[in-house]
Amino acid sequence: MGLFVHKYGGTSMGSTERIRSVAQRVAKWRRAGHDMVVVPSAMSGETNRLLGLAKELMPHAATPEAMRELDAVAATGEQVSVGLLALALQAEGVPALSYAGWQVPVRTDSAFTKARVASIDEARVRASLAAGNVVIITGFQGIDPLGNVTTLGRGGSDTSAVAVAAALKADECLIYTDVDGVYTSDPRIVPEARRLGSVSFEEMLELASLGSKVLQIRSVEFAGKYRVPVRVLSSFTPWDIPIGDEAESGTLITFEEYEKMERAIVSGIAYNRDEAKISVLGVPDRPGIAFQILGPVADANIDVDVIIQNVSHDGRTDFSFTVPRNDYQRALDLLKGKVQPAIGAADVRGDTRICKVSIVGIGMKSHSGVAARMFRTLSEEGINIQMITTSEIKTSVVIDEKYMELAVRALHKAFELDVAPTAEA
Amino acid sequence: MGLFVHKYGGTSMGSTERIRSVAQRVAKWRRAGHDMVVVPSAMSGETNRLLGLAKELMPHAATPEAMRELDAVAATGEQVSVGLLALALQAEGVPALSYAGWQVPVRTDSAFTKARVASIDEARVRASLAAGNVVIITGFQGIDPLGNVTTLGRGGSDTSAVAVAAALKADECLIYTDVDGVYTSDPRIVPEARRLGSVSFEEMLELASLGSKVLQIRSVEFAGKYRVPVRVLSSFTPWDIPIGDEAESGTLITFEEYEKMERAIVSGIAYNRDEAKISVLGVPDRPGIAFQILGPVADANIDVDVIIQNVSHDGRTDFSFTVPRNDYQRALDLLKGKVQPAIGAADVRGDTRICKVSIVGIGMKSHSGVAARMFRTLSEEGINIQMITTSEIKTSVVIDEKYMELAVRALHKAFELDVAPTAEA
Repeated sequence: MGLFVHKYGGTSMGSTERIRSVAQRVAKWRRAGHDMVVVPSAMSGETNRLLGLAKELMPHAATPEAMRELDAVAATGEQVSVGLLALALQAEGVPALSYAGWQVPVRTDSAFTKARVASIDEARVRASLAAGNVVIITGFQGIDPLGNVTTLGRGGSDTSAVAVAAALKADECLIYTDVDGVYTSDPRIVPEARRLGSVSFEEMLELASLGSKVLQIRSVEFAGKYRVPVRVLSSFTPWDIPIGDEAESGTLITFEEYEKMERAIVSGIAYNRDEAKISVLGVPDRPGIAFQILGPVADANIDVDVIIQNVSHDGRTDFSFTVPRNDYQRALDLLKGKVQPAIGAADVRGDTRICKVSIVGIGMKSHSGVAARMFRTLSEEGINIQMITTSEIKTSVVIDEKYMELAVRALHKAFELDVAPTAEA
Repeated sequence: MGLFVHKYGGTSMGSTERIRSVAQRVAKWRRAGHDMVVVPSAMSGETNRLLGLAKELMPHAATPEAMRELDAVAATGEQVSVGLLALALQAEGVPALSYAGWQVPVRTDSAFTKARVASIDEARVRASLAAGNVVIITGFQGIDPLGNVTTLGRGGSDTSAVAVAAALKADECLIYTDVDGVYTSDPRIVPEARRLGSVSFEEMLELASLGSKVLQIRSVEFAGKYRVPVRVLSSFTPWDIPIGDEAESGTLITFEEYEKMERAIVSGIAYNRDEAKISVLGVPDRPGIAFQILGPVADANIDVDVIIQNVSHDGRTDFSFTVPRNDYQRALDLLKGKVQPAIGAADVRGDTRICKVSIVGIGMKSHSGVAARMFRTLSEEGINIQMITTSEIKTSVVIDEKYMELAVRALHKAFELDVAPTAEA
């Protein structure tokens, strides 16, 4: 008998009827003799409703004090979910108790609205499990060292679930969501996209960070760091199918070495249109300049993704990077107001109408010519490439947003992702 | 400059527009130099919405485990309110921070859904006030010794506010509500009812417990125990009237001795139709029998109000009492199933179609004939009295529910409550 962590998304928790289905599914696992911990999201729409109320009162919450209150408000969505799910399980005759992040406690840093999990105290959870309960823990939240409620940012419940699974050394963390696994690309854009039976941790990390939206990136990082086996699967399969069928559905994120796995050179095509591009032009090319530009951006808690610095001409260079679109205006104001005068740059420009398209595959490590095939494919479609970055297992390009679907479909075809590799067949 | 606690009800917090009004009112007091603590209720309708969801999943939550989850769910309503109000104050330029019950902490016993406040730790609140913040604390909730969230029952936010005022030794606790004070009776039933400028603590206790619904009874008990001056006033007066006008409106609950106060013999007529009557008939009249009947009822956390034991005939007596209608079925089942066989009573009967009508007045202490005038008035209206209880400052009768309005109006007129006493004019 094992210890399993189930995570259910907002759609799965969207009504009392659906919560009852979740309870029936969890009860099935419990009755099979497993110790069960469940991490549900807020009911769908609830977090947006709460943040909408907050926004009516303060359209731009930017101070730590305001973000502290946003977190206190937003965290209640999951607190409602856990209580309702506990009641639904109890009504099924299965002992269950709920715990908010502060009750476990799930300890985080103090970065309101995007806190990071520091540690999870397992004592109370273990005691509750030992007493025969299904333990239900709020996703998305924790407390900081001063006892303030924090949230982990959008999709943070995935991270909560994986972190709990890591702390408890669970056999597997099952993420029930509205897709039935990880695909070679987004099926809404590429109808021929196929579900992957398994995917390596490194590939998943890239696929998630590049906008596949199946899992929050931090959850994959956590899974990798603590080697938690994570399975992404659908919450829309009937709750009463055999446990064995559930346990083999979806996509398993594995930690096997590449050598042991038979797989295609490229596993998937990812995209992300939630970023914006900022260029700092005419920057004096001297040591420390990158830090002088990006230090203040990091201090403002803005994540920077693709970073490009061109070779310099006449002692000046151009410096470009992408930021989340939500933080675009704040980043631009910061750079124009403080950084540009301080370093003596010629200009700061931005563009929100961009997207990033990436090919991802652990097989790229040992196959040359993959990037070249990507560039040729885009060229044949007449798509101009604005920025390029590469890593061992991915190649990303930033292009005009309007070509996104075209680019994803063309690359999916060029790398023959619509055909199942024979080794997997 | 003083320290004031403001409490706002659900209607006052019913929309972001209204929350902004509350923030403006609080900001006015803060800018006048006062230290401010605010205890808001959940937005109107929110607690019912949350408990409605819970009820869909478990129609009858009766176990401690289920009630624990009800409390965890219901408490989120106030957690949303405090965060939104803090944001509204910050948007007004007034530093403000919110604290949930567990963050203060407000410590209670473990009686889920009807917990009692045991103590309030003032350290964190005082530090936050000293740092210049308006401190906003969730009403209605606390934590028990095991760290579980508890709620104080309907209207519990009044108690929270008074308890906070007591802990901080506030100058006054102002309860902003949808009525502008305490009336001689319910104006919906008696159009001639007048607002009282002040009322003694003892009268208020009776008026509240007898169903005046202006304040939760425990809040009045708390106010009396710690001698917290409490003012009930309307949240519908414009927020920008002078502070002095606000401070003199509403009804002040005072602790002055009767001798110092000029007042009518009877201050008000209260009623309560939230109770049901239970009679245990043919009870062997021996020592300890009242405890044998009411002990199990108390153990089940059911409050008993009016208790009557008639003189015995042939060694047997009848024993009647009232309980909250919500607990009626539970009490009846308990008495029929366990108590009746144990003590050998002849029968247990109940009636939910009753109401209690009371005359309340500190002046009754020194004036005889007040009860007689009450009984004569009801007799003249042809209303049969089923039960009677008296205390120093009130006389209550239990009558058929259908006569309630008639009885209240007739008594209001008989005791000339429609005419302001000359001493108050």
